[in-house]
Amino acid sequence: MELSHIDEKGNARMVDVSGKEHTVREATASGRVLMDRKTLDLIVSNGLPKGDVLSTARIAGIMAAKDTYRLIPMCHNLPLDGVTVELYPDLERCSIEIRATVRCVWKTGVEMEALTAASVACLTVFDMCKAVDKNMIIEDIKVLRKTGGKSGTFERQGEDRWQG
Amino acid sequence: MELSHIDEKGNARMVDVSGKEHTVREATASGRVLMDRKTLDLIVSNGLPKGDVLSTARIAGIMAAKDTYRLIPMCHNLPLDGVTVELYPDLERCSIEIRATVRCVWKTGVEMEALTAASVACLTVFDMCKAVDKNMIIEDIKVLRKTGGKSGTFERQGEDRWQG
Amino acid sequence: MELSHIDEKGNARMVDVSGKEHTVREATASGRVLMDRKTLDLIVSNGLPKGDVLSTARIAGIMAAKDTYRLIPMCHNLPLDGVTVELYPDLERCSIEIRATVRCVWKTGVEMEALTAASVACLTVFDMCKAVDKNMIIEDIKVLRKTGGKSGTFERQGEDRWQG
Amino acid sequence: MELSHIDEKGNARMVDVSGKEHTVREATASGRVLMDRKTLDLIVSNGLPKGDVLSTARIAGIMAAKDTYRLIPMCHNLPLDGVTVELYPDLERCSIEIRATVRCVWKTGVEMEALTAASVACLTVFDMCKAVDKNMIIEDIKVLRKTGGKSGTFERQGEDRWQG
Amino acid sequence: MELSHIDEKGNARMVDVSGKEHTVREATASGRVLMDRKTLDLIVSNGLPKGDVLSTARIAGIMAAKDTYRLIPMCHNLPLDGVTVELYPDLERCSIEIRATVRCVWKTGVEMEALTAASVACLTVFDMCKAVDKNMIIEDIKVLRKTGGKSGTFERQGEDRWQG
Amino acid sequence: MELSHIDEKGNARMVDVSGKEHTVREATASGRVLMDRKTLDLIVSNGLPKGDVLSTARIAGIMAAKDTYRLIPMCHNLPLDGVTVELYPDLERCSIEIRATVRCVWKTGVEMEALTAASVACLTVFDMCKAVDKNMIIEDIKVLRKTGGKSGTFERQGEDRWQG
Repeated sequence: MELSHIDEKGNARMVDVSGKEHTVREATASGRVLMDRKTLDLIVSNGLPKGDVLSTARIAGIMAAKDTYRLIPMCHNLPLDGVTVELYPDLERCSIEIRATVRCVWKTGVEMEALTAASVACLTVFDMCKAVDKNMIIEDIKVLRKTGGKSGTFERQGEDRWQG
Repeated sequence: MELSHIDEKGNARMVDVSGKEHTVREATASGRVLMDRKTLDLIVSNGLPKGDVLSTARIAGIMAAKDTYRLIPMCHNLPLDGVTVELYPDLERCSIEIRATVRCVWKTGVEMEALTAASVACLTVFDMCKAVDKNMIIEDIKVLRKTGGKSGTFERQGEDRWQG
Repeated sequence: MELSHIDEKGNARMVDVSGKEHTVREATASGRVLMDRKTLDLIVSNGLPKGDVLSTARIAGIMAAKDTYRLIPMCHNLPLDGVTVELYPDLERCSIEIRATVRCVWKTGVEMEALTAASVACLTVFDMCKAVDKNMIIEDIKVLRKTGGKSGTFERQGEDRWQG
Repeated sequence: MELSHIDEKGNARMVDVSGKEHTVREATASGRVLMDRKTLDLIVSNGLPKGDVLSTARIAGIMAAKDTYRLIPMCHNLPLDGVTVELYPDLERCSIEIRATVRCVWKTGVEMEALTAASVACLTVFDMCKAVDKNMIIEDIKVLRKTGGKSGTFERQGEDRWQG
Repeated sequence: MELSHIDEKGNARMVDVSGKEHTVREATASGRVLMDRKTLDLIVSNGLPKGDVLSTARIAGIMAAKDTYRLIPMCHNLPLDGVTVELYPDLERCSIEIRATVRCVWKTGVEMEALTAASVACLTVFDMCKAVDKNMIIEDIKVLRKTGGKSGTFERQGEDRWQG
Repeated sequence: MELSHIDEKGNARMVDVSGKEHTVREATASGRVLMDRKTLDLIVSNGLPKGDVLSTARIAGIMAAKDTYRLIPMCHNLPLDGVTVELYPDLERCSIEIRATVRCVWKTGVEMEALTAASVACLTVFDMCKAVDKNMIIEDIKVLRKTGGKSGTFERQGEDRWQG
């Protein structure tokens, strides 16, 4: 078991994937922005998101997926085939819940792209609301599911809350 | 109380700060990557980080601070004056703890820059370790402290665990 | 009368503005996407824009304003103070009308930033609709108004149609 | 007939093309900068372009084609195979005429890349000349021709003026 | 014999490679930063690099390889398969020696990516040390080896000093 | 004497310049591409550069100056005031000689911006000619002159060959 982006001397490298096969890869990641009730009320009226708050976050997340390789130093630049970012307000937990899915036919997995999309969507929600709430917390950024490639399917246990 | 990046019709905008004063702004944000004990052991030996894992995350975080305005759609592009990103392994919690501080003399605050630096440093730690651990979770991304500007100093309560 | 970005030998240069004063600069530019009636009907229902079509274009335009200096080789990189991008469907002309305003306190004007925001918003409308209409035309990209700086106020004649 | 970048709820998405075939794609787009006679005379002497004005626009257009996916939120990032941008002064119409062609073997068309190249070349001509002419207009940005892919060849009617 | 990025009229173009075959491409490039003995002593203690100086340069070089197509106007954007950047202090020559290797399965060679990685790693070493030494010189940036593609293997003569 | 971008623990940081004064900063850097006589003959005819070879390199260098902060991890993002990149063929030495000058009113020097402009211009010359000459060497990238700031004027000794 070893960290693939570090060589035997401990030096960072972008690991060579030239010998790997092209297969359909998909990854889904989640994230959450916890906020004050009053903040959530400014985003949502009658259960419906208002204006561009969530649209801006969705678009920022999609664009960030494509920029992952410029943000994460050892990530490969991949031609992504599809990206979706979903957001919904969770009134009970008082949060915006975010889920990003990335799809690609390529030699490496796309979980970093999904995680980056989810993270940047969370940060954008934070930015849109920070004038009224400085206590928000971004949490629970993780991989929910990953398919394709030699390592096969990874599915996280006990993830059934999504209602988007 | 209103969301500053949304106009009265709900349309996103980059809010006009041309009338605001230049003051020294500083913001500190935190983040954390929870991981398996075995994963942490691969990063740390005898209490010391090995190789480029944490260096890569630190550098990625610093670079991301400068790129915040391209990731977060309504953020202003600011000439940052200084960025530091600190990481330390928390053996008890089994995590890498991250803290980013950004400094700037300008018309708007820099909390988004600090949050983005912390988030991208977390994502980079995830990327460096994902070959051995797919269950990591990024959490607790938040603003610890913010000074400067009309809204004055914001300090989060009960944040005293940092040991880096 | 001379082209400022070309030196006496005809070589491109980014002209030196270090001796110019910081003043409030503002520029407004427009653009238009002409389209088929059926295409416009897919964007607008009962006079109201549907879904993210115009939001995506607005956000793309705002982000492009900040990226102008990377697209237009001789443009200065400026810390922009505010950007708005407005879009409205013109049912009579069968078009989406776009207007972008950029504001900045700096040594050079911001008309290129406003023009770039308008252009990229037009291109994004095109992209969102191209699956159903390949005959769209982008036209009338121009500076409507420009204030600040030594050259003073520029206002285009006969521009009174905007209804957004 | 539907807008492919919007899902059934009206949310923007980067549409999944993972199931589409790789075929040779080519697209040609045009654009035009109308200007004052005196401005055109500064660019052209004895019928020949002077210095770097048109070269800068050509290079900016080529570079923009490669950056399309970062400007247009729902565009896929594609490895382009070839880009040409042609410009010629039209003395009769008093304009710079621009034509961009992009070629690629991939799963999606490249008309947005050609349109973006043409737009940014137009904007660059504007930038190079704006010190002497604020009344320029960019117009007639459109797809002239598109080949490859399931939708086959698209050719615009009545486009025969190009003399470059 | 002709310059491929220039057409018959002398205009720059991104040459069309759509008809070329996908083969494994690899290129190795070198570079060197000559510095003062005292500067080298600040980077190296007891023969071992100190802190993040060389790590920062290595990471910057790897990231720059992926950004080559945005820096070099006529370069194709390629999905790179692997990048390594090695640095070692040459105590005899009083320099940091740099070697970058890029690997890709694609239609064009990757020597520009390797050269860009080496150049940016050199520049980063310069940046990390410039506070104490303004007389450094970057030199000997060249292609050491190139394999794959129609032109076959290129190997530079008399290059045997590398000790990293 | 210490490396400013490394803290006492050896960790990279973007050093805080918030307390430094705004002064006029200027830096000039040079670089050179050595090439085969036949290669130089393809670029130059009758002593005059042909087509877009040198124009492309000049424009790439200017654009790279503005992108320095994204390439060199610890560089500050600065609003540059002016950039010029000059190139001339040195028939005697069989090279293209490059000189880049950057100007800025800000808190930090701009030598990295000048060096990056010179380096990328060199790399672009290499790219434009690599189809006919794989043995080119980039060398002599260095700071010629630097003014402004607390450290005052730095001028390199014995640099009098420039003929551009």
